Amino acid sequence: MATVKQINIALLGLGTVGKGLVNLLKENEAEILNKHNAKVNVVKVFERNADKLVKFGLDKNLFTDNMQNIYDDANVDVVVELLGRIHPSKEYIEGALKAKKNVVTANKDLICMHGDELLEVAKENGVTLLYEASCLGAVPVINTLKNNFLGDEIKSIKGIFNGTTNYILTKMTQEGLSYEECLKEAQALGYAESDPTNDVEGIDAAYKLCILSRFAFGLDAKFDDITKKGITKITSQDIQIAARLGYTIKLLAIAKCNNGELEMRVNPVFVSNNHQLSKINGAFNACTIEGNYSDEITLIGRGAGSHPTASAVANDVMNFAHTMGDVGSRTLKKAKLAKDGTMKYYLRLSILDKPGILSDIAKIFGDNGISIESVIQDKNDNPEVKSLIIVTHVTTSSGMQKALDKIAKTASVQSVDSVLEVIG
Amino acid sequence: MATVKQINIALLGLGTVGKGLVNLLKENEAEILNKHNAKVNVVKVFERNADKLVKFGLDKNLFTDNMQNIYDDANVDVVVELLGRIHPSKEYIEGALKAKKNVVTANKDLICMHGDELLEVAKENGVTLLYEASCLGAVPVINTLKNNFLGDEIKSIKGIFNGTTNYILTKMTQEGLSYEECLKEAQALGYAESDPTNDVEGIDAAYKLCILSRFAFGLDAKFDDITKKGITKITSQDIQIAARLGYTIKLLAIAKCNNGELEMRVNPVFVSNNHQLSKINGAFNACTIEGNYSDEITLIGRGAGSHPTASAVANDVMNFAHTMGDVGSRTLKKAKLAKDGTMKYYLRLSILDKPGILSDIAKIFGDNGISIESVIQDKNDNPEVKSLIIVTHVTTSSGMQKALDKIAKTASVQSVDSVLEVIG
Repeated sequence: MATVKQINIALLGLGTVGKGLVNLLKENEAEILNKHNAKVNVVKVFERNADKLVKFGLDKNLFTDNMQNIYDDANVDVVVELLGRIHPSKEYIEGALKAKKNVVTANKDLICMHGDELLEVAKENGVTLLYEASCLGAVPVINTLKNNFLGDEIKSIKGIFNGTTNYILTKMTQEGLSYEECLKEAQALGYAESDPTNDVEGIDAAYKLCILSRFAFGLDAKFDDITKKGITKITSQDIQIAARLGYTIKLLAIAKCNNGELEMRVNPVFVSNNHQLSKINGAFNACTIEGNYSDEITLIGRGAGSHPTASAVANDVMNFAHTMGDVGSRTLKKAKLAKDGTMKYYLRLSILDKPGILSDIAKIFGDNGISIESVIQDKNDNPEVKSLIIVTHVTTSSGMQKALDKIAKTASVQSVDSVLEVIG
Repeated sequence: MATVKQINIALLGLGTVGKGLVNLLKENEAEILNKHNAKVNVVKVFERNADKLVKFGLDKNLFTDNMQNIYDDANVDVVVELLGRIHPSKEYIEGALKAKKNVVTANKDLICMHGDELLEVAKENGVTLLYEASCLGAVPVINTLKNNFLGDEIKSIKGIFNGTTNYILTKMTQEGLSYEECLKEAQALGYAESDPTNDVEGIDAAYKLCILSRFAFGLDAKFDDITKKGITKITSQDIQIAARLGYTIKLLAIAKCNNGELEMRVNPVFVSNNHQLSKINGAFNACTIEGNYSDEITLIGRGAGSHPTASAVANDVMNFAHTMGDVGSRTLKKAKLAKDGTMKYYLRLSILDKPGILSDIAKIFGDNGISIESVIQDKNDNPEVKSLIIVTHVTTSSGMQKALDKIAKTASVQSVDSVLEVIG
């Protein structure tokens, strides 16, 4: 076994995602060691003051408010920029790249507007700039475009790239409320900003479309080339008409290429209810990539939030475990096979409807440590018997097997008709 | 610009996927050159006789029925195995690897049963064995597990890995038919084999689960360790009960890890209608991967078929464009920005219901080259006016703009209330 590789990171910004990353690195320390034979150490945290570190339980000696300390620290391998906004993040990242540090960022505005320039600086300095977290949080859409469709011609990218607007449209669709009512609720729940312009006018989605279009179509795609139309004019009437015609209204970011000509837009779309994107509800994000041979591939997941975004950032950081120094290919941990299964169960029994039968069965479950979520008595094809439908909480397969053996021997039970797993 | 990299492949088997691959390489030749500065040449085709090649329009000089000719051909860079079955594919792949050829295969049975052994042979010989197409056709689930979740602990993989059974269950659910009726129809349509055992008993799905579990959990997962239960016992009654309780029955392949202990099974599951997997219908495949920080990421696409499988094979082949010889990182083509948009439109107009209004509007569309898919007249909030709802076929944005300018000036049109894109 090679020596454990140490990856030292400087973290710029201890906000929601920064805290999520620190927690991930702590919680998944054993997993990361197991998978990569590597350990990630936070060796500097750039913030306005040290209090934030101390409050979060970090050593105050990690604190710095001077980027030069990070550039000069030969110990720092990777700079993780989680400050957001274009300035001064752009200057900080440039400085880090010039100091030969690899950089990971989640900053979509910055990458959209200045990504090409920063990638050039990285190249000149022989280091790498990664930014999976800038698009769709934990949904690995940049990596998917990098590593797949290599023999395909990509025809289009279409997606739900903004959770706030999808939450609002889902609520308008499901509850028949107006745009204004749903926006207010989204704001009350913290899903939408007090100034929601960036989300509801399609600007946030356009940043991501711009970044992804470069991977898919190689165009030096520019934000200004994207037509943007938001959801503020969507009415309940249009949503109802859509439903009647078999469609659902979604705010889609679309880039499609015909004969080498690219169209890019963010706008509300009548999406056929047969299409996967019509089924993405609430705060979820999704992206459908269409290759000329692969057909449509859709990726769905959480597009924002502390943990999912930290996951994407950590993924980029762990990439460096295999490009820096002496650690070879990913080493996989070895899980061991479980002796017993664990699951929720659905059971359907045919029973003679006699007094006490339900309590007999309930007792058998209880004796085997199985708790019941719901019980329904239903009619059966045979009028003399009833169907008893039971959904359990999560239990062991061995416990269920014992219970079923006992139930099969119970006088009033005619047959055990179905035993199926339940998820969700 | 570096010299165009030549990648010479020997193709074993000119069946559906083999033909799909040959077509892809021809159709996407310019795209592949553009993206990778590479050209893929089929230099040998292993088949039983040369007729098959000639009938498909391939040069009969490519034909060989002797693997030794392929092992000995210094010109062959990559061997693509598309024969299926375990023997003699296993021996052929071993031979190719020992002759220092890279190998790409779509053979799930073989990789499930002997993947570890073959990867060992590849390693010993300093070459690479890739098999993205062995799992879920064009859905890049192996690459996703390789390149993502690097900082996460993967908690579970759950998926619909078999299109035949999903087609049958979808039909049972949507049309209330019995298993036997749906199986017969699937067989008539060629979606199910005359002996459907491998599909309906969960064996096919278990092969894929076995392969994916190795990437996710590092266990030397064995096919025999997977509990398999098929769909033959699923009744309409269970499907109806599921619907009543808010679930859909799906055949899921599941591997989940708790405290380092892994459970693996293929079985029919009550999937909550809130879960993405409940919404995957027909012959589609899907896989949900759950990381402890990423939460659930779902990938959806076509899990079988000539083109999607060829797409996954070609992706693996193109990987070698960047590991063999002098071609650097992927070069991206440059698309150019389209001057005009193309899309289907939904329009909602408020009109005064006067004779001739519809023909006036239809004429404006016709004059601007826009053809109409459907027109609906609807009541409006204002009793004096009607809503006119129009869905067009695909047209240009400039044409639509001209038509809208004209429509806005039409006497009986009160207002243009909505102009939205339509997909599907």
